[in-house]
Amino acid sequence: MTDIRTKKLINAPEDLIAEAIEGMVAAHPDMLVVEGATGRAVVAVDGPREGKVGIVIGGGSGHEPAFAGYVGRGLADAAAVGNVFASPSPEQIMDAARAVEGGAGVMFLYGNYTGDVMNFDMAAEECTAAGIPARSVQVTDDVASAPAERAGERRGIAGDFFVFKVAGAAAEQGRDLDGCEAAARAANANTRSMGVALSACSMPQTGKPNFEIGHDEMEIGMGLHGEPGMRRGKLEPADAVTDELLAPVIADLGLAAGDEVAVLVNGLGATGQLELYIIHRRVAQTLKSLGVAIHHSWVGEYATSLEMAGASVTLMKLDADLKALLDTPCRTPALTVGNVLPPAAGRRVRRAAGNAQAKAVVDRSTLKTEGEVTPAIFRAMMRKAGDAIAENRDWLSELDGVIGDGDHGITMDIGWTAVRKALDAAPGDETVSETSDRMAKAFLDAVGASSGPLYASAFRSAGAAVSDRLNLDAGALVAWVAGMCDGILARGGAAVGDKTMIDAWVPALEAARAALAGGGDLRACLAAAAEGARKGRDHTATIESRRGRSAKLGARSIGHVDPGAASAHVLLAAIRDAV
Amino acid sequence: MTDIRTKKLINAPEDLIAEAIEGMVAAHPDMLVVEGATGRAVVAVDGPREGKVGIVIGGGSGHEPAFAGYVGRGLADAAAVGNVFASPSPEQIMDAARAVEGGAGVMFLYGNYTGDVMNFDMAAEECTAAGIPARSVQVTDDVASAPAERAGERRGIAGDFFVFKVAGAAAEQGRDLDGCEAAARAANANTRSMGVALSACSMPQTGKPNFEIGHDEMEIGMGLHGEPGMRRGKLEPADAVTDELLAPVIADLGLAAGDEVAVLVNGLGATGQLELYIIHRRVAQTLKSLGVAIHHSWVGEYATSLEMAGASVTLMKLDADLKALLDTPCRTPALTVGNVLPPAAGRRVRRAAGNAQAKAVVDRSTLKTEGEVTPAIFRAMMRKAGDAIAENRDWLSELDGVIGDGDHGITMDIGWTAVRKALDAAPGDETVSETSDRMAKAFLDAVGASSGPLYASAFRSAGAAVSDRLNLDAGALVAWVAGMCDGILARGGAAVGDKTMIDAWVPALEAARAALAGGGDLRACLAAAAEGARKGRDHTATIESRRGRSAKLGARSIGHVDPGAASAHVLLAAIRDAV
Repeated sequence: MTDIRTKKLINAPEDLIAEAIEGMVAAHPDMLVVEGATGRAVVAVDGPREGKVGIVIGGGSGHEPAFAGYVGRGLADAAAVGNVFASPSPEQIMDAARAVEGGAGVMFLYGNYTGDVMNFDMAAEECTAAGIPARSVQVTDDVASAPAERAGERRGIAGDFFVFKVAGAAAEQGRDLDGCEAAARAANANTRSMGVALSACSMPQTGKPNFEIGHDEMEIGMGLHGEPGMRRGKLEPADAVTDELLAPVIADLGLAAGDEVAVLVNGLGATGQLELYIIHRRVAQTLKSLGVAIHHSWVGEYATSLEMAGASVTLMKLDADLKALLDTPCRTPALTVGNVLPPAAGRRVRRAAGNAQAKAVVDRSTLKTEGEVTPAIFRAMMRKAGDAIAENRDWLSELDGVIGDGDHGITMDIGWTAVRKALDAAPGDETVSETSDRMAKAFLDAVGASSGPLYASAFRSAGAAVSDRLNLDAGALVAWVAGMCDGILARGGAAVGDKTMIDAWVPALEAARAALAGGGDLRACLAAAAEGARKGRDHTATIESRRGRSAKLGARSIGHVDPGAASAHVLLAAIRDAV
Repeated sequence: MTDIRTKKLINAPEDLIAEAIEGMVAAHPDMLVVEGATGRAVVAVDGPREGKVGIVIGGGSGHEPAFAGYVGRGLADAAAVGNVFASPSPEQIMDAARAVEGGAGVMFLYGNYTGDVMNFDMAAEECTAAGIPARSVQVTDDVASAPAERAGERRGIAGDFFVFKVAGAAAEQGRDLDGCEAAARAANANTRSMGVALSACSMPQTGKPNFEIGHDEMEIGMGLHGEPGMRRGKLEPADAVTDELLAPVIADLGLAAGDEVAVLVNGLGATGQLELYIIHRRVAQTLKSLGVAIHHSWVGEYATSLEMAGASVTLMKLDADLKALLDTPCRTPALTVGNVLPPAAGRRVRRAAGNAQAKAVVDRSTLKTEGEVTPAIFRAMMRKAGDAIAENRDWLSELDGVIGDGDHGITMDIGWTAVRKALDAAPGDETVSETSDRMAKAFLDAVGASSGPLYASAFRSAGAAVSDRLNLDAGALVAWVAGMCDGILARGGAAVGDKTMIDAWVPALEAARAALAGGGDLRACLAAAAEGARKGRDHTATIESRRGRSAKLGARSIGHVDPGAASAHVLLAAIRDAV
C-alpha cells in the first residue's frame, strides 16, 4: 500500500465543521437552525415545543448524514455536532438540550462510544443540576464489537438510524419521558448491525488513511472509525459477504418464520448504490427463504465513515408499536417518511437559556493558608505540566500508535494548550479550587476524546477536594491528587489493572499517601507520586488492555505501555520538578 | 500513481445491473416494478396512467441514483437502465416506453451523449412506427463541455435532476405532450452545471481507474465518465474551487439581482456531505452577494460517477412556472417533494404490449437469384468478419486507448459475438435482407456504445438495399455496402473528414463502385472496397478528430488512426477474404 493523501474539498481543516454547519443550515432553512453559543447545536425549526420530550442526538462528525441530517419535525429536535470522529463536548450538548427543552424532559441518544458516553453523561448531570429531567440511551447495534453476553459493550453504528427514528416518533406522538425512553430501548434491543470495510478513510487534518488494508482485502466487522473487526480476508463476492454480515444479525435477533423486520443497507462512503442494492437483493432473498417479512427497506448512505468504502446491514425486528413508530411521519434533510406534518402547536418557552448553576461566592477569609503552594505557584505548576505534555507530545502519540488511535499526544496537548491559555486568563486572586474548575472547562471544551471528560472530571473533583484551601501544604496536595483519581475513576469506570491512565494515577496516590504518612514533606510527597506513576506506567506494559480500542488487541497489547498512564507520569513528574 | 484496483461489493460483473435492479425493486416495492422482456425498464407502480404523458428517462448505470432512483409518482414514469457508462438499447428504452404509454404520448429525457442520442432516437422512431407520439429532450447543462455558441453540443450532467423533475411535474399536472416538452426545454434552457473531479473511478469489469490524476491534482470541468475538463491543476481550497465552478454557471445564465434559483450541490461518489455543505455555503454566500435568492437547495449525491471523488454545482434560474413545477409533489426512491399524492386514477390501458411492427412476409419466388453469394455464403462471410474482429480486438482497443475510451475492440467484439450467435440461429432459408435485420437486432441489443446504433442502422439499411435479392452479385454487394454507408451516415451525423468510421466506409464504397463501373467482378469489387477502406483508415491518421471524445484532443489526435475506421477495414478485408 502506498500512502496516498485523500483529497478533500475543504478550506482550513479547523473551520471544517463550522463551515459545513453553515452550509447545511443555508441549504435547509425551512428545517434547520443553529442555536446556542457553541455553534454546534443544529435545531429543528419546527421540532421542539412545549410539553414535548426533546430528542437530542449527537456524536462526532464524519458520519453524515448522521447526525444533523436527522434533525427535523418528527425525528430529532436537535443534534450536537462534534469534531470529526470526536464526541461533542458537554457544553455543545447542553446548547442542544437547552434549545429543545419544552418542560417534558430531554432524551439523549447516541452511539455507545466511551467519549460520547462521558460527554453526554456530563451534560445529563448538568441538566439534572438545572432541573431538566434527562435520560440517555446508547445505541449498541454492532454485533461484531462484542459477543451477546456483553451486548451492553457493543458499539453503535448504522442502527442509530432506527433508534433515533423510533424515539423521535414516540416524542412526536406525545409520549412522556418514560414512554420515549422505553420506545428507544425497545428499538435498540431489537436492532442489530454488522459492517464490512474495503478501504480506509482519512482525517481532514492529516489526509492520512486511518488504517492499512491490502488492495484485495476486506475487514468484516470493522467499526465506523476503523475499529478492528472480526476477521480480515480476501474480498469475496457480494453475496458471500452479505451472508457473512447477515448470519450473526439474524442469529442474535433470533429471527424466525413469521417475524417482520425493517432493513437498512448502509453505505460507508465510497461504496455506491449499485453495490448497496446488490447487497439488499441478497438480504431480501435470505429473509424470504426464512419466512421473515420486510416491512420497509432503506438503501443508501445513512451513517458513513467519511470516504471509507464498505457497507453495513442492519435489521430491526418489529412489533406493532415499533412498526407504528417507524411509519410515523417525519421530515428531515436525510429522511422523509409520510406526509409533511401540520405546523407544530405549542412552540416552546425557553426556560433554560443560560447555565443554571450559579457560581457560589467564596469567602476567602475562611480559607486555610498553611502550605507553600500559593494559587500563583499552583498555576505555575500546572503550566509546567502543560509544557511537559507539549514536549512529550510526539512520543505519547507514538505510544498510542502501537495500541490505539495514535492521537493521545495530540489530544493531550490540545487540552493542555487550552489549559495554559485559561491559566493566563485567570485573575490573580483565583483560588486553587476555582483554577481547577477553570482548567476543567478549558480541557473539556477543547478535547472531544475521552481524555476530555476524564481530565475535566479529575480537575473538578481535585478542585473540590481543596475547596477549603487558599494555599496547599503536603496533605492538601495529596488530597488534590486523590481528587484527580476520584474524578477519573467516577467518570471512566475503569478499574486498576485495566491498562489505563488510572494505573498510573492510583499508584501515584498510594505512594504519595505513604510518603505523607511517613512524615514526608511536600517535595517528598510529590516525588513519591511521580515515582509511583512511573512504576504504574511501566506495569501497564506487562498487562492486557481491557478498555478502549486497545482491548481488541488482547494479549497483543502486552509489551506496550499505556499512553494514558505515560502521560499521567509526564504530568506528575513535571509537577514534582516545578516545586 | 500506482495502479490500484478499486474493490467493489459485486458478484459476477456481467450480472451487476440485473442484480442491482432486483435489489432496488425489492427495496421499494411500493414504488417500483420491472416491466418488459429486457428486464431493464424500471417503472413507477403509481405513475403511468391513461391520458397522461409518459415520462421516460434513462442512460448508463454508474450514476446512481440516476436514473431509476427518479422513477415514481410525480417524476419519471420509467427509466431505461443501460450498462455501466453505456446507453440503454432501443429495445430496453421501448420496454420503458410501452410500460408508460397512456395514449398521450411519451417524452424521452436523457443526458446529451452520442450513444444515448442514437439509442433514444431509434426508440423514438420505433414509437412513431407503432403509433405512439414521442418527443426527446437532451439535457445540456455542462458549461465546461462546450462554449455558449455551441450550447447544443454540451453534455448533460447533474442538471438532469432539474429537467427530469420539471418534466415529471408537468406530466403529473396533466399537461399534454407539447406542454411537457416545452416545460422540459425551459428547464434545460435555464439550467447550468460545472463539476470538478479529484479522483478517477473504475469500471466493474476491469477494476482499473478510468483516468490518471496526480495525488494533489484536481480537474475542473471533467465529465461524469471522465471526459476531459477545462483545466487541471493543484487542488485548491473549497471556496476557490467553488468560485471557479460557479462563475461560468452564473455568467452563462446571466444571473442578476432579483433573480431566483434552485441549487444542486452534487457529490460524484466518494466526496461526503461535509464537503458538499462547505461548497453550498460558498454558493449561498456568493448568490446572496449578487442579490440572487435561493428558492430551494439540494445537497447530496444526485448524479454520481461510481466512486469518483469530486462534486458539481448546478443552478436552475426560475420563473413562476418552473418554480411551481419544482414544488409539485413527487415521491421516488431518491427524491421526495411535498406530500404523498392520492392514488392515481385512470390506470393505463396497455395498448403497446408487443412490437407493433408486423413482419412483412417475403414472397421468395419474386427474388432475384443472380450472383454467387447465396444467403448461406453471406452468413459465412459475416461469420468471418466477426472472427476478424475477435482477432483484432486488443489491437483495436489499443488504438482507441490513445485517443478514446480504449474499449472499441471490446465493444465491437461484443457486438460481433452477438452477431455470430444470431447467425447460428438463423433459419436456412432466411434472406440476406432478413439476416441483415437479425444482425442489426443482435448488435443493438449487445452494444450500448454508439457503435451499437451505428452498425445496427447500417445492417438494417444494407439489408433494405438488397431486399429484392435472394443471391448477391457484384452489383448487389456494392449496394449492400452503400446501404451500410447510408445507415451510418443517417444515424451518426458525422461527415467524411470528421475522423470516424465513415472515413473508411465511404472510400470503400467509392472504390467498389469504381471497380464495378470498370466491369470488375465480385472479387474485384470486394478487393477494391477493402483497399479503399485501408486508404481511408490511414488517412484518418493525418486529420484532426471532430466527433466524440477524441475531438477534445484537437491537433493532438493527429498521428493516430481512428479505431472505428480501423475496424471498418478489418471487416471489409475479412469479407473480401471470405469469398
